[in-house]
Amino acid sequence: MKLLRVGAAGAERPALLDEDGTTLRDLSGLAADVDGELLADPDALARVRQAAAGGELPALDAAGLRIGPPVARIGKVVCIGLNYHDHAAETGAEPPAEPVVFFKAADTVVGPHDVVLVPRRSRKTDWEAELAVVIGRTARYLADDEDPLSYVAGYAVSHDVSEREFQLERGGTWDKGKNCETFNPLGPWLVTADEVPDPQALSLRLWVNGRLRQDGSTADQIFPVADVVRYVSRFMTLYPGDVINTGTPAGVALGQPEPKPFLRAGDVVELEIQGLGRQRQEFKDA
Amino acid sequence: MKLLRVGAAGAERPALLDEDGTTLRDLSGLAADVDGELLADPDALARVRQAAAGGELPALDAAGLRIGPPVARIGKVVCIGLNYHDHAAETGAEPPAEPVVFFKAADTVVGPHDVVLVPRRSRKTDWEAELAVVIGRTARYLADDEDPLSYVAGYAVSHDVSEREFQLERGGTWDKGKNCETFNPLGPWLVTADEVPDPQALSLRLWVNGRLRQDGSTADQIFPVADVVRYVSRFMTLYPGDVINTGTPAGVALGQPEPKPFLRAGDVVELEIQGLGRQRQEFKDA
Repeated sequence: MKLLRVGAAGAERPALLDEDGTTLRDLSGLAADVDGELLADPDALARVRQAAAGGELPALDAAGLRIGPPVARIGKVVCIGLNYHDHAAETGAEPPAEPVVFFKAADTVVGPHDVVLVPRRSRKTDWEAELAVVIGRTARYLADDEDPLSYVAGYAVSHDVSEREFQLERGGTWDKGKNCETFNPLGPWLVTADEVPDPQALSLRLWVNGRLRQDGSTADQIFPVADVVRYVSRFMTLYPGDVINTGTPAGVALGQPEPKPFLRAGDVVELEIQGLGRQRQEFKDA
Repeated sequence: MKLLRVGAAGAERPALLDEDGTTLRDLSGLAADVDGELLADPDALARVRQAAAGGELPALDAAGLRIGPPVARIGKVVCIGLNYHDHAAETGAEPPAEPVVFFKAADTVVGPHDVVLVPRRSRKTDWEAELAVVIGRTARYLADDEDPLSYVAGYAVSHDVSEREFQLERGGTWDKGKNCETFNPLGPWLVTADEVPDPQALSLRLWVNGRLRQDGSTADQIFPVADVVRYVSRFMTLYPGDVINTGTPAGVALGQPEPKPFLRAGDVVELEIQGLGRQRQEFKDA
């Protein structure tokens, strides 16, 4: 299933994208929202699946309808840094020996086509197309013989917008350059895990003003999704509705020759992941 | 006012500590909870204040009542590292040129007397007494001539529990050692800003198994609260109900000679800040 949330920011309603790939269906009769509570409830998800299959869900008029982030009340957004061989190489970093973890605040999450704001005093706003993993049940100290993917509710396209000067040149951890407002477009939909048989076989592409800048595959991830979920669960507890951004492939502005093509107001970024949909953001000044 | 939340974890009700310092008053007739919504509403806070002054609030039977974190639905917990001259010195770090920022997930926040769990495989669990700042209105790109303290709803005692090996020896940012479950006891109460005329004149003390380990003052902060709020607001937007942990003074286990006295199951940590109350946690194995 492809679950989403549509409507004005802060007043979204739950919806479903039909198997035809175009019709939106209203889920608000079956679920209060798409959130950790729904994702952790197999019975509720089964009811949604059944209603969809039975053609019981009313169609929504999609004309002019904003798409919000596909998950409400996200608890935390855990991010994995330098998780693609080709991206680690372009930044000049050694491939990390174990996953690099940093955070985005959940309040940075916006819809997939919302405006993204270039922070004031920013000179190095950059793009990062990423596969997001959405947690479906509480994952805590996963054992070696447990299947981490069974804790995953689904997958989504995520844009881990980053300010490189704030991240790398202002002291301390990376978090300073990862948490500017609007810095995490998510969606358009949450594709449930049953429709993504192999999360390590997805192509990711990102364009800036129509020019292809990132063209990678999750096959190049240093730490695959399963390893990431298990690893993170041994440092912190993952709850339903938490999100993990699993890293970006090569092609970010930081990895280009000078003058690096950092983002400015007026730029348009589009990104897509195979089977997970497409985002488009116009950048404006904060 | 001293606002707090009492009851079982996840089912707390809002309360107020009387000026006598011992009687708890039930606030649930006046406020749904102590959260960003209440803290951002001056009229609602005025009604609480008036009801308290008029003796209109029913007393609560405090016997056996658990105290929860004083703020519900915390959005994010921004933390400032190395923010005391004496603590920077004990860790061997240069005082930072600008604030060091990292994150704790809001799901690490527990009540002030709740059990704290030593993570599995942990060998270096450490304590950090901190002054927490709770945001009362949205702070975004504060100008030089704005008063950052006018964005502060109040202050609380915070325990920024830290796993030093996870934080410093496992690659990447500090976040890996700061986000283990139960790692942020907060409270017992939120003291509204009007009762804290100078946040830079507060003594902080912390004991481990009865032995005084930290004995500092916010006067020693490298970046005072006002500067921290302004600084952070220029990288990310602070919302009502967000928390900033403003750093810890000297005396943590990491700063002691070998063998460093890291925390283990059975240890008891107590901490207090002048005028903001006292916490006590027993440590157990996760």
